[in-house]
Amino acid sequence: MSFPKFITDFPGLDLPFPEDIVQTAVIRSDHGLVAFFTFLKGMELPMHSHGAQWGTVIEGEIELTIGDEIKTYRTGDSYSIPAGADHGATIQAGTRVIDVFEEPDRYPIKD
Amino acid sequence: MSFPKFITDFPGLDLPFPEDIVQTAVIRSDHGLVAFFTFLKGMELPMHSHGAQWGTVIEGEIELTIGDEIKTYRTGDSYSIPAGADHGATIQAGTRVIDVFEEPDRYPIKD
Repeated sequence: MSFPKFITDFPGLDLPFPEDIVQTAVIRSDHGLVAFFTFLKGMELPMHSHGAQWGTVIEGEIELTIGDEIKTYRTGDSYSIPAGADHGATIQAGTRVIDVFEEPDRYPIKD
Repeated sequence: MSFPKFITDFPGLDLPFPEDIVQTAVIRSDHGLVAFFTFLKGMELPMHSHGAQWGTVIEGEIELTIGDEIKTYRTGDSYSIPAGADHGATIQAGTRVIDVFEEPDRYPIKD
């Protein structure tokens, strides 16, 4: 399965990862950023922190570390990362998630 | 469970339903509209059609009719409604969904 074309046609994020690892499509307003991620390959996201983030797993599996807690999230599971909380992830190939960021400019949008 | 405050603080939609039935929070750009719906009460959405729509059930249950097909969607299930396809829904109280619309102005945003 994949997101429908009208979603994958949304503008993408300018991320420091190759496009053969993760595809992105976003809707951004002055109020926040909604990102549709498709991980074509598995990847490790190092620990980092920023403004509040909430996400939900559409398909696949991610192991999310928030502070000292490690938990695995699968299809239908949602997670909430408080502002400033250190977090990182191990993401399996084929995973799709929607992430919502309170910071509209969390990541730059590709021209 | 509910969406985090930073999401429920997003602007709401001006819908023809009372707010004690459904709460909305949206991010809209020129490219589309992402709506976070929380149904406090059960409701019936009559058959209608518009541009392409995709959604995912965060919590709860909706029975969706698309054309002649009736199917029940629960937490973790996603659905795709092609542009122009007649569709309607029976939504259980306590259901939360994310809907993505290809038409940014599918519903007006409240001032």
